[in-house]
Amino acid sequence: MALLETIHSPADVKKLSSDQLPQLAEEIRERIILATSENGGHIGPNLGVVELCIAMHRVFNTPEDNFVFDVSHQGYVHKLLTGRNGPEFDKLRQTGGISGFLNREESSHDSFGAGHAGTALSAAVGMATARDLRGSNEHVVALLGDAALTCGITMEALNNIAASTKRLIIILNDNEWSIDKNVGAISDYLNQLITTPIYNKAHKDIEQFLRGVPGGEKLLALGSRVKRDTKDFITSEQASLFEKFKLRYIGPIDGHNIELLCHYLEFCKQAKEPIVLHVRTIKGKGCEVALRNPEKFHGCSPFQIQTGDAKTQPKPGAPANWQDVFGRTLVRYAQKDPRILGITAAMPSGTSLHLMKRELPRQYFDVGIAEEHAVLFAAGLATKGYKPVCAIYSTFLQRAYDMIIHDVCLQNLDVTFCMDRAGLSPNDGATHHGLFDISYLRCVPNAVIMQPKDEDELADMLHSAIEHKGPAFIRYPRGAAQGVSIKEKPAVIPFGKAEVLKEGNEIMLWALGTMVEESRKLAIELEKKLNVSVGVVNARFAKPIDTDLLAQHASKAKLIVTLEDNVITSGFGTGVVESLQLMNSKVSVLRIGWPDEFIEHGTSVEGLRAKHGLSPAAMLERIVTDFNAAR
Amino acid sequence: MALLETIHSPADVKKLSSDQLPQLAEEIRERIILATSENGGHIGPNLGVVELCIAMHRVFNTPEDNFVFDVSHQGYVHKLLTGRNGPEFDKLRQTGGISGFLNREESSHDSFGAGHAGTALSAAVGMATARDLRGSNEHVVALLGDAALTCGITMEALNNIAASTKRLIIILNDNEWSIDKNVGAISDYLNQLITTPIYNKAHKDIEQFLRGVPGGEKLLALGSRVKRDTKDFITSEQASLFEKFKLRYIGPIDGHNIELLCHYLEFCKQAKEPIVLHVRTIKGKGCEVALRNPEKFHGCSPFQIQTGDAKTQPKPGAPANWQDVFGRTLVRYAQKDPRILGITAAMPSGTSLHLMKRELPRQYFDVGIAEEHAVLFAAGLATKGYKPVCAIYSTFLQRAYDMIIHDVCLQNLDVTFCMDRAGLSPNDGATHHGLFDISYLRCVPNAVIMQPKDEDELADMLHSAIEHKGPAFIRYPRGAAQGVSIKEKPAVIPFGKAEVLKEGNEIMLWALGTMVEESRKLAIELEKKLNVSVGVVNARFAKPIDTDLLAQHASKAKLIVTLEDNVITSGFGTGVVESLQLMNSKVSVLRIGWPDEFIEHGTSVEGLRAKHGLSPAAMLERIVTDFNAAR
Repeated sequence: MALLETIHSPADVKKLSSDQLPQLAEEIRERIILATSENGGHIGPNLGVVELCIAMHRVFNTPEDNFVFDVSHQGYVHKLLTGRNGPEFDKLRQTGGISGFLNREESSHDSFGAGHAGTALSAAVGMATARDLRGSNEHVVALLGDAALTCGITMEALNNIAASTKRLIIILNDNEWSIDKNVGAISDYLNQLITTPIYNKAHKDIEQFLRGVPGGEKLLALGSRVKRDTKDFITSEQASLFEKFKLRYIGPIDGHNIELLCHYLEFCKQAKEPIVLHVRTIKGKGCEVALRNPEKFHGCSPFQIQTGDAKTQPKPGAPANWQDVFGRTLVRYAQKDPRILGITAAMPSGTSLHLMKRELPRQYFDVGIAEEHAVLFAAGLATKGYKPVCAIYSTFLQRAYDMIIHDVCLQNLDVTFCMDRAGLSPNDGATHHGLFDISYLRCVPNAVIMQPKDEDELADMLHSAIEHKGPAFIRYPRGAAQGVSIKEKPAVIPFGKAEVLKEGNEIMLWALGTMVEESRKLAIELEKKLNVSVGVVNARFAKPIDTDLLAQHASKAKLIVTLEDNVITSGFGTGVVESLQLMNSKVSVLRIGWPDEFIEHGTSVEGLRAKHGLSPAAMLERIVTDFNAAR
Repeated sequence: MALLETIHSPADVKKLSSDQLPQLAEEIRERIILATSENGGHIGPNLGVVELCIAMHRVFNTPEDNFVFDVSHQGYVHKLLTGRNGPEFDKLRQTGGISGFLNREESSHDSFGAGHAGTALSAAVGMATARDLRGSNEHVVALLGDAALTCGITMEALNNIAASTKRLIIILNDNEWSIDKNVGAISDYLNQLITTPIYNKAHKDIEQFLRGVPGGEKLLALGSRVKRDTKDFITSEQASLFEKFKLRYIGPIDGHNIELLCHYLEFCKQAKEPIVLHVRTIKGKGCEVALRNPEKFHGCSPFQIQTGDAKTQPKPGAPANWQDVFGRTLVRYAQKDPRILGITAAMPSGTSLHLMKRELPRQYFDVGIAEEHAVLFAAGLATKGYKPVCAIYSTFLQRAYDMIIHDVCLQNLDVTFCMDRAGLSPNDGATHHGLFDISYLRCVPNAVIMQPKDEDELADMLHSAIEHKGPAFIRYPRGAAQGVSIKEKPAVIPFGKAEVLKEGNEIMLWALGTMVEESRKLAIELEKKLNVSVGVVNARFAKPIDTDLLAQHASKAKLIVTLEDNVITSGFGTGVVESLQLMNSKVSVLRIGWPDEFIEHGTSVEGLRAKHGLSPAAMLERIVTDFNAAR
């Protein structure tokens, strides 16, 4: 790491000779492979942009110039080149280490944070407009993956660029993948550009430009893939999709040739119109295992560098993950009922809907990173008697909030939402935690919101939601379920009915989902410590609340404790408090959930819980304190 | 109305001879002009699609075939042709009359309801996919305005069509307007298609098709604007934006020639690929005043047919509307501070941001119907020290929910949101009421949510929000403010501080925004009726709640009543209840707000309030009952 160790800021990148850059790239790759093999992370996307990010920092000057990275999971190289190559990188995505995404609080070189896809171009248009308004001269560079073009927002931004600014540099980092293989017409269109490049005014200009720089002639021959003599060539200015949006388009060029990239970026710098530079990269370049399995090594868990095997193998007999249970169960139901359809927004593996793709391809739909379309598409399917199941991460479902209200719930359509990653995504952090869904859904009329205590109940809830006339939302977290067996024939859960797991008198623990098991343990501790009778309720529903049972408990208990894996504001506990207010109960309540703040990334769920007052010991103490005050 | 009276279903439309259709169109126009002059409504868009909707019902068979109307404000003609030409149409948009939008509960001919833009194409793709899956043969026809193409969702749908279905008919109703004049690159592109039509394979096919039908030769010469002999012509298959999405494209054709439309629609029916028919229409056609002022007569209040003047003129000295106060105040502030920018998503007049456009065009941005981009664009501007103010209707802001959480609030950026139409939009109904914003925003960390009691406080809040470091949300309703004068120099309102308007002891009315004035009146009534001391608090903030003041009141009052113009679930009142729970107060609470259901359209705010338990008398009674129970 002789070269990388000398890099403390982008100025150091510029001090290196061109000859040294391949060596720097190699060292960066080594550093990233090592760190991600230890900590997990977005290895594939970062290995793909090593040369590109070096070139960007050779040509531009952050923080004066602004880089806006879409999703920003490909920001590791940028981080290493901007003063974050110390122990903070060793602890990438861990407690005390740097974030796996760009973060304005982490560095002035991170001009815009992200974690969800498709935001970069709009934010960059805002920055470029601000620059134009104040009359300064910095460059704004948006780096988008090809998958960003499946997001509607990117298209909204494209529609607005020409009217907003004359100077914006868009680098389209095309590796044919979003997380899974890209879908849709735009992806096909980009492939077509690869095989049949467009030759237009921008290309004429860059030829001229390259002829004026040392080594340019050589590059011309080499990299731009411009072949004027083929008759396949589309020569019209109008031919490019981007030119329909009044952007100049050049490319595709080799995204692993630093010298070529630098020259093209220099050309972009002097463009008088917004310009798209189409760059071809190879996801996972330089890491054999990542190249062989691009989807798995998009974002991965700690792995053995040689074999690609996960460092921690699940123990034999360990519980399956929630998502796998969901995927397998959905396949089982859909095999018997052809009306059941599975819809994912570019997350087939993450949601385990790839099982549906494999077993029942006709009943499976991947619409790309397009949550709004996913939900509306489901609504359309539901009008014709189908039973669509949208499997979308809790945090990404925020994208489709208007469609949930205006299209699905208002029309009371039979759409089931399976909200994966409800709770923490510890290593990813604030942009990926699913801590708001109960709160943003509870206010929506016709919404039914539930969370299972174990995988058998997930199977029951999925069955019940599909049978239910109207929208239903099921949430469950990342990671291992409880390890209970799933009965063959699912039960229909009566909507709005909770389940008493342990009778009690003085303290009633009303727990939702993952907090049920915590509550069983808490009840034992509490009974030992306080010598009182403590009951445990599996609430099942965040909406509707089981008000009959709640009224019974309110009339006898001294304290009702609600426990949920959601932000405390407007969550399940608030639903309980609202219900108690409506029945004019004066029983004391303690609501346990995540505080009203954005939760950072960290090594483990347990660590983050402890930090935010949700460790078993802290919960116990809070309950004891409140019970002593209430009795 | 001799012909229109004979039309009870689409079958009756098909019985008419071609010669009778212009007469039918004329009668429909007369009927729409009359009804909207009485009731208000979307006159311009409907007058533009009279011939188009007649042609659609000549060629297709609803309800077996499905029409999906984008926004569906242009559905009046369709309604008149599908059995809704009775008294229900006289009372269009009024209590007991039909909705101004398509509504699945209203008619089986309405296959998908809407009110927000950009949803039609995705829903239609869902329907077409369902049809393909079940192997039936009906047609799915999506009718989009050109403005739908500024919405990202439409682009997400376009990206997915080719992979989803081989049969989908998309009618692009191009009138150059969304509500205001369209903005952005796609709008320019469509204009370019008008002046330089594309000649491609679809056009060759339709020429052949038309030659085979009676009168087709004549139509060929007349309508398609296909001129093969101009050298401006773009002949490549690749040249059309739509063909990049693997759709066939034909047009533009005259949208007021029924015979031509019918032939083209017949051609579309037999297309083996998804096809876009580009139709040119004139917004407001057949109504002189609507033609002269397309923006005003997009959606209008009751008006004099001859002059176009509003039937109810504001009385001299009547209070200004909230939106006008907002617009004027923002201009005043922005004149002094060039960092202040105004952003609208295609609603310059509705939000009164057109005042900014007129006075400070450099500080004004209309991004089209693209709320997600609007908020991200604002976030980008804010990173460079600007003070963007997004003026977006409460219900439309649902579209940008993820950007509010993930981009603005997580990064704590200085963006001010002015949420217009917070409360009821009575004539528009469920798709337009702004009843959820407090609930969906309260759970977002860093969000500050406020509502002014009068226009002077709006000015203070706007000033305070702009000065505040971080995101702030101000909500206010449609219609007239209180009529108080606005002081010259705005005050900074301390965040999270409520204002006691009337001291009291036994009952404390905590009211937000428009409910403050109601509460003053209620307090007088309550004191008379109960002979107790009733206080009134202008809460100002739905988040953060003034917990110090609340604690004082909780310790002395017998009943705290919260009043808000928002759904009762997770709203301001819930915030109060959460705060009381945290301070372990046992005071009785009554939460007054909208029930947990979608509220229909109706003639007036008062009428809808009365129907849902929010009339002054009903509120009085509820407070009396709860107070008697509590004391």
